Amino acid sequence: MKIALAQLNYHIGDFAGNTEKIIRTIRQSAQSGAELVVFAELAMTGYPPRDFLEFDDFITKTEEAIHTIAAGCNGIAAIIGAPSRNLTGKGKPLFNTAWFLNDGKVQNLTHKSLLPNYDVFDEYRYFEPSADFGVIHLHGKKLAITICEDIWNINEIPMYDRIPLDEIIRESPDLIINIAASPFHYNQGLIRRQVLRENALKYKLPVVYVNHVGAQTELIFDGASMVCDDGGNIRKSLKIFDEELCLVDIDDSFYGAKPADEIVVPETVSDISLVHDALVTGIRDYFGKMGFSKAILGLSGGIDSAVTMALAAKALGPENVRGILLPSEFSSDHSIGDARRLALNLGCPHDLISIREAYSALEHSLDPFFSGLPFGLAEENLQARVRAVLLMAMSNKFGYILLNTSNKSEAAVGYGTLYGDMCGGLSVLGDVYKTDVYKLAAYINRENEVIPVNTIVKPPSAELRPGQKDSDSLPEYELLDRLLYQYIEKRRGPRELEEMGFDPALVSRVLRMVNSNEWKRYQTPPILRVSPKAFGMGRRMPIVGKYLG
Amino acid sequence: MKIALAQLNYHIGDFAGNTEKIIRTIRQSAQSGAELVVFAELAMTGYPPRDFLEFDDFITKTEEAIHTIAAGCNGIAAIIGAPSRNLTGKGKPLFNTAWFLNDGKVQNLTHKSLLPNYDVFDEYRYFEPSADFGVIHLHGKKLAITICEDIWNINEIPMYDRIPLDEIIRESPDLIINIAASPFHYNQGLIRRQVLRENALKYKLPVVYVNHVGAQTELIFDGASMVCDDGGNIRKSLKIFDEELCLVDIDDSFYGAKPADEIVVPETVSDISLVHDALVTGIRDYFGKMGFSKAILGLSGGIDSAVTMALAAKALGPENVRGILLPSEFSSDHSIGDARRLALNLGCPHDLISIREAYSALEHSLDPFFSGLPFGLAEENLQARVRAVLLMAMSNKFGYILLNTSNKSEAAVGYGTLYGDMCGGLSVLGDVYKTDVYKLAAYINRENEVIPVNTIVKPPSAELRPGQKDSDSLPEYELLDRLLYQYIEKRRGPRELEEMGFDPALVSRVLRMVNSNEWKRYQTPPILRVSPKAFGMGRRMPIVGKYLG
Repeated sequence: MKIALAQLNYHIGDFAGNTEKIIRTIRQSAQSGAELVVFAELAMTGYPPRDFLEFDDFITKTEEAIHTIAAGCNGIAAIIGAPSRNLTGKGKPLFNTAWFLNDGKVQNLTHKSLLPNYDVFDEYRYFEPSADFGVIHLHGKKLAITICEDIWNINEIPMYDRIPLDEIIRESPDLIINIAASPFHYNQGLIRRQVLRENALKYKLPVVYVNHVGAQTELIFDGASMVCDDGGNIRKSLKIFDEELCLVDIDDSFYGAKPADEIVVPETVSDISLVHDALVTGIRDYFGKMGFSKAILGLSGGIDSAVTMALAAKALGPENVRGILLPSEFSSDHSIGDARRLALNLGCPHDLISIREAYSALEHSLDPFFSGLPFGLAEENLQARVRAVLLMAMSNKFGYILLNTSNKSEAAVGYGTLYGDMCGGLSVLGDVYKTDVYKLAAYINRENEVIPVNTIVKPPSAELRPGQKDSDSLPEYELLDRLLYQYIEKRRGPRELEEMGFDPALVSRVLRMVNSNEWKRYQTPPILRVSPKAFGMGRRMPIVGKYLG
Repeated sequence: MKIALAQLNYHIGDFAGNTEKIIRTIRQSAQSGAELVVFAELAMTGYPPRDFLEFDDFITKTEEAIHTIAAGCNGIAAIIGAPSRNLTGKGKPLFNTAWFLNDGKVQNLTHKSLLPNYDVFDEYRYFEPSADFGVIHLHGKKLAITICEDIWNINEIPMYDRIPLDEIIRESPDLIINIAASPFHYNQGLIRRQVLRENALKYKLPVVYVNHVGAQTELIFDGASMVCDDGGNIRKSLKIFDEELCLVDIDDSFYGAKPADEIVVPETVSDISLVHDALVTGIRDYFGKMGFSKAILGLSGGIDSAVTMALAAKALGPENVRGILLPSEFSSDHSIGDARRLALNLGCPHDLISIREAYSALEHSLDPFFSGLPFGLAEENLQARVRAVLLMAMSNKFGYILLNTSNKSEAAVGYGTLYGDMCGGLSVLGDVYKTDVYKLAAYINRENEVIPVNTIVKPPSAELRPGQKDSDSLPEYELLDRLLYQYIEKRRGPRELEEMGFDPALVSRVLRMVNSNEWKRYQTPPILRVSPKAFGMGRRMPIVGKYLG
């Protein structure tokens, strides 16, 4: 059977745009000889449509779009993900459905059974899990249609109380099709291959897997759709971070294959180039889907703003990324020099606005209250906030989106000024630990010196008071990041961390910093997610919680 | 049977504090002759503990606390809500459990079956629903123990596919006990009474209902625990917004009662005093649980900051609420006069800091870029941001929490400056439409003029350019709020709104404003929730969504 895999970039709620793209793709698939074209989970609406699903009008528009598309399915069948109404009179009002379109109409609906409701996923908020299982017939073949999570319940301790393919397999399908909305994190590609391999081997069937590509605010979809044979050997891999329409003929060679080798998934970032490309995709699609083309950011001469600018220049074109140097009396000469050199290396426009005058005026206005009191945190924050006000003024005046440059280590421990350097429309590095920011810098510099070496080798500093260094207030990043990873990604509590060998005083200090800064992170811009546990929608912590606080 | 209802204010994750409070309450209950004392759902951890539940250490600490408490249950039994581990090897790792403690030990666990996963609730993120149903025996009586949502599935179209009491009733219980974590909204008290009435009548049993009281960041619990007889007549009501320990003897008079009248629940705010008291509770507990005592806010002379200050003065004491007047060249004389009068009426400290000098300095710094361009949004925002910088400097220097004064109408349409007047640690009025802010003002002034009448009668203005009025950019609030209510609370889409008689051009304009400002609301402080649909954790919309955008 000739199947076209349609790996596309949708825009949430853009029914006109998504419909046009889907119809065009069906036509192309038919022309190339495909008998079936497969689109991703909730392709019709984009993923995740979130609470738009609670609007009856939104569902009506979905149905109208699906029926328009179905009318064009002649000589070719299509599988498209979209919500559908639950008409059983029991449970949640919707199903998460694979619509099977053929002969100009909707022929069949297969509903998702396993609804992820953890991390960034809220599917049980909207959808009723299906308990009906069966195959779809097409040209004498039986297709086992599954939706993303439906094939993920293969662990020793299952997350759900059923395994859909254990039911469907009774009807002896010829092929597993899985339509997915599986967002990127640095190891997700390997985990997906592992899942496909295990399903292929368990059920002795080939698997056709179609994912989304492109970013929807914080969630980045890498695509990487694929087809494996019944031994779990990957026979076709689609592009990473790019659209592709790919025709695969599932012939006899996909059956009776020898078992593929097991896949080893490392613990942390195995390939920094994937993180790089994910962040570029995240920036590009955020701007594109918000209808903006130009970014602005503050350049400190430090590594976070340098890496952010390089990524943005890649995503938007260097001419569309404007750097503003905002020195204060505490800025060192190398900060200005390094920042300028970066902008010149990248070919980005850049300007300098001193914050001294505005800072002095604000200090003077506060004099009746602050006079006689020592310089402290309030004054440090004041500098960061003057910078933000100037950047936002430029943003408002000329239509830039301000990029936030905070990294995950800072965001974790609250080392940043709310309404100051924590500002921005999008946080580019908020899911990248400081030690990984260095890896990104090295990757960006892999061919030539884009980021000035001095930016990379000098000790990190916020430069908000004379001679300040990050290491005055924080543990060394190498140690801090290892501890944060265990606490945030692995959810290990204080006793476990001490058992792992971390110093109890350090554990207590760092965990207190993380938990007591929840109020600050609450007001952070959306963070491009590249790890299995990012701050934001996937990590939901109480603000007034006292545990470890 | 003599049952004590323990309506308490817990602090999320404060195991030491919560344990001490629970043990003290058990002792008091025993002394007053109670045979059983009932605490709320997840009382042990506070509600909602959110992703703390994913930490094994957090669950271990819960279990340790429960066993400490159980050891003191001699001569009295206790029901306490807390998570418990799912040891079945299938499904989510936890249950949401009513722990039954008696004779110095844990005697029985009843798990929650219906897990709310809508609006502000995420219970299916953590808990496995129970499919086991049974009664607990105590002194010859059979208790049907249920947890919050377990008794809410009584509608014609059920949200879940089972009804726990339909199962438990087979064991002929004598009494329904429901432990709850049911947050306040302006009609929730009436809805709860209705639910209790329907259960009492359906099963012909009295119901003992114990709720939380006090606020956990945005969620405010009103308490209002109660006992009704088997006719659904409320026989005992506990305090609203206050802790109470109340002993009720469920004797023969609770059986064979005549059916209570049906309860009519109005559509919108029926009693503004409840909203007032909820907001006072929300402010008080946010400060108390964050370990702060003093608030600061900007006073514009307008109604939003006036109402916010009055509520804060009630919650924290007038001496702990400092108002800062931050006039610009566009501020009218009455703004300053009205703001001063308000602070004097309330007895709150207040100061004036002119923003002119700082604003001029910032303008001057931007001159190389802005020179020759007309005054516009950037300059308007600049003023709001200078105010925020000054307020945050005071906050940082003297340990105030800045209160946000934006109302729900503004938050909905994006009529506010991000990092300007949208700043703050807590949004007091972000779930109160402008027209309801006026009702709050009238309620605050019910005995004498606290909020100057001029603040109430003058047309709303942001005063960011000469002669500006809100009505220049927005529809009249009376119309706007009616439309927003239908869109936000009732989730009616554009077609339905037009069918209701709203002007299509207005619908299109307002819905576009709401949807295109999602990025701004994402960075808003937590909003005290007083309606059935507040911005924040209960309303999850895509930022890059294009639907109606």
